[in-house]
Amino acid sequence: MPVLYLIPVPIAENALHTVPPYVQDIARRLDVFIVERAKTARHFIKSLGPEKPIQEMIFTELPEHRHSADAEKTFLETIAAGKDVGLLSEAGCPGVADPGAGIVALAHRHGVRVVPLVGPSSLLLALMASGMNGQRFAFHGYLSPKRPELARDLRRLEQLARQHDQTQLFIETPYRGQMVLDVALDTLQPDSVFGVALDLTGTGEMIRSLPVREWRKAGKVELAKAPAVFLIGKN
Amino acid sequence: MPVLYLIPVPIAENALHTVPPYVQDIARRLDVFIVERAKTARHFIKSLGPEKPIQEMIFTELPEHRHSADAEKTFLETIAAGKDVGLLSEAGCPGVADPGAGIVALAHRHGVRVVPLVGPSSLLLALMASGMNGQRFAFHGYLSPKRPELARDLRRLEQLARQHDQTQLFIETPYRGQMVLDVALDTLQPDSVFGVALDLTGTGEMIRSLPVREWRKAGKVELAKAPAVFLIGKN
Repeated sequence: MPVLYLIPVPIAENALHTVPPYVQDIARRLDVFIVERAKTARHFIKSLGPEKPIQEMIFTELPEHRHSADAEKTFLETIAAGKDVGLLSEAGCPGVADPGAGIVALAHRHGVRVVPLVGPSSLLLALMASGMNGQRFAFHGYLSPKRPELARDLRRLEQLARQHDQTQLFIETPYRGQMVLDVALDTLQPDSVFGVALDLTGTGEMIRSLPVREWRKAGKVELAKAPAVFLIGKN
Repeated sequence: MPVLYLIPVPIAENALHTVPPYVQDIARRLDVFIVERAKTARHFIKSLGPEKPIQEMIFTELPEHRHSADAEKTFLETIAAGKDVGLLSEAGCPGVADPGAGIVALAHRHGVRVVPLVGPSSLLLALMASGMNGQRFAFHGYLSPKRPELARDLRRLEQLARQHDQTQLFIETPYRGQMVLDVALDTLQPDSVFGVALDLTGTGEMIRSLPVREWRKAGKVELAKAPAVFLIGKN
C-alpha cells in the first residue's frame, strides 16, 4: 500500500544533521515529491545522494493556498500507481506554519496511510527553549505588519497568556524582527515574559526569554536578520 | 561557558532512530542530568553507550510542579562549576506537555545558554499528519476525565476551531483513549474534522483524520491502548 511521507527539512544553513538518518533514507528512495518550492526541494534531495538521477524525479509545487489541482493530480496518480509520495516544505515540517495540509487531508479522504517523520521545527524548539508554559500554548502565524495594529495584536496575545496561562507563539520574517522586538518591549506589561528565538539550529542561534522588565533593564538589543519565533508568556 | 541542553527522547519502544546522532553524541558526553524520572533516564543514557560509567553520573528528578529545590540546586551547582547540564523528560521533548520549563526559565534568569535539540514530539507529528490547519493551532493538555465535563470541553474546543479556524490539540492516557473517541463522535458536529494519532513512531502507529460524519459512517473503531493525541479542526 502506498504511503504519503511527511519529510522535514533543515531550518538553518548546514544543518542536515538535524534530519535523522532514517528520514534521509526514506527521502533518498522516493521519486515523486510534492513541495513548497521545486528549486530548494531538488537541492535538498540532491544533497542526500538519491538512488535515482534527479532528472527522473517528479517535483510538483504546492501553492500557498490550500487546494492545488497540479499537486492533487500528482498525488492521486502516483498513489493509484502504487507508489509512495514525499511531501516537503521550504524549511521545517510540512503543514506546520507551512503549506502541505491540503495534500495530507486528501490522503486521509482517500484512505492513504500518512507517515509523519521526525525533524526540526522552529516552533517546537522555540517553545522548549522558552521556559514558558508548554502544557498550554497557541500559535498564531504572523501578526499585523503595521505598528499600531501590531501593538494591538501583542496586547491581545498578552491578555490570552495572562488569562489562561497559555504561551502565545508567532513568527516574523528576518527583516521585520527588530521592529517586533521594539514594539513588544514598548507595549507589554513589565511582568509578562517575552521570548525571541533566532536562527534555531544555525550558527547564529540566539534564544532569550525574560520578563519584559529585565529586557528593558538590559538596554537595546540588536537582532540579527534571521527567521524569528516570538513568545509571550505569563510569569 | 556552560550550556543547558534540552534533550528529546524516543516516544515509542525501539525508536532510538528518531533521535538524531548529533543529539545522541551530546547526551553521551554529559554527566549531569535533570530528568522527569531517573530510572528511565538512566536506561536511555545507558542505551547510547556513554563515555563515563553510569554510576559516576548525576540524575536529579524534577517533580511535576514547576519549582523543585533539588533540581534547581543541581543545575546551579553544575553551572557554577562550569559544566553542561542535560534536561530530559520521560518521552518526547522536555518542557512541551512535560515538566522542565522551570529549569529552562532558571537558566535564562542566570544568563545560561539554552540549546534545544531536535527530536520526536507527538504533538508536532500529530499536527503535521492531521491535514488540519497548521498555521493556527492550540494545545490544551488533558481534558476533563468525566463524560459530561469531557463533552462540554469538546464542544468548547470545537467552537474555538470553528470560530478561529484554529486546530485544537489535546492528549489522553492509553487506557482512556477509547472513551474520548466515543464521546467525541457522539458530541461533535458532523462537518467538524476529528483526528486521532496513536503510538506515533511506534510499530502500532495509527493516524486517522476525517470529518465526524465519515467517522460515523465507518462504524465503531477500537483504539489500541497507546498514548494518544487528539485533534479537532474546521473543515
